[in-house]
Amino acid sequence: SKDQLLARLRRIEGQVRGLAGMVQDDRYCIDILTQISAAQAALDKVALGLLDGHAHTCVIGAEPEQQDERTEEMMAAVARLMRRG
Amino acid sequence: SKDQLLARLRRIEGQVRGLAGMVQDDRYCIDILTQISAAQAALDKVALGLLDGHAHTCVIGAEPEQQDERTEEMMAAVARLMRRG
Amino acid sequence: SKDQLLARLRRIEGQVRGLAGMVQDDRYCIDILTQISAAQAALDKVALGLLDGHAHTCVIGAEPEQQDERTEEMMAAVARLMRRG
Amino acid sequence: SKDQLLARLRRIEGQVRGLAGMVQDDRYCIDILTQISAAQAALDKVALGLLDGHAHTCVIGAEPEQQDERTEEMMAAVARLMRRG
Repeated sequence: SKDQLLARLRRIEGQVRGLAGMVQDDRYCIDILTQISAAQAALDKVALGLLDGHAHTCVIGAEPEQQDERTEEMMAAVARLMRRG
Repeated sequence: SKDQLLARLRRIEGQVRGLAGMVQDDRYCIDILTQISAAQAALDKVALGLLDGHAHTCVIGAEPEQQDERTEEMMAAVARLMRRG
Repeated sequence: SKDQLLARLRRIEGQVRGLAGMVQDDRYCIDILTQISAAQAALDKVALGLLDGHAHTCVIGAEPEQQDERTEEMMAAVARLMRRG
Repeated sequence: SKDQLLARLRRIEGQVRGLAGMVQDDRYCIDILTQISAAQAALDKVALGLLDGHAHTCVIGAEPEQQDERTEEMMAAVARLMRRG
């Protein structure tokens, strides 16, 4: 749901702010990298949640004549997520 | 450098805040996913910068008797980054 | 198409056999790693091609009462591909 | 070790050959995608093993005047593995 998604994004925003704090305090690189991996995993979860909603609502829920175009768009998004950017 | 790293992290924090704004405004899922991929790519760059600094300073710059342990630690961080979390 | 897909998979099989040859010949690790990245990129392309065909044929082309289940299955596959395994 | 690495690569070669067989037999796309994820995970393991050997032998074991260059090379390989190709 939208509220859940927003709560997750607020948490990730806090994780990234925490990363800046760790760099500021000269924390050990490996600990910072562990937190980056955690933020990436959290962003992946948000992305999968959005993709799932999109597939249900905007692809299979679209008018039949739009479904192919919507599928193309979704696959392009999956490709960007797989190679990250 | 530390300042560059902090500037990058501030920008990523802004990207994540922007994501929350896009969700709040019910923006099109695919556009939000594109921004998530951009944030992931930016986090990957920060991670590679930190890893690089770590390899130079804390691995090859370590006392000989610490180098193996530091290498293990670095490889574990690389493994987490490759499978994201 | 199926022929294209099979041709790609034969090429990837050859790439992996080439990797074994490089290890056998004690080739420089970094060169072997470059070839592993190439094989991964080629497998990603095959995966995206299959996903795309699946989305068109088995998701939007499914009976309405099957579409939700098929979408779930597809999303689980995307999640496995994103975190690789 | 080299024998272990070769055994793993032979197994991955068999996995990729198995993928071609699954496509040939028109097996269900999602099952093929699951096998692709397994092959990707196996290649990631081989890559991490090679990187680890490289870091110990060719980076921290190198002559001091070569260590920086070897570290750069290794980091470029890590970047390729992270964005797969």
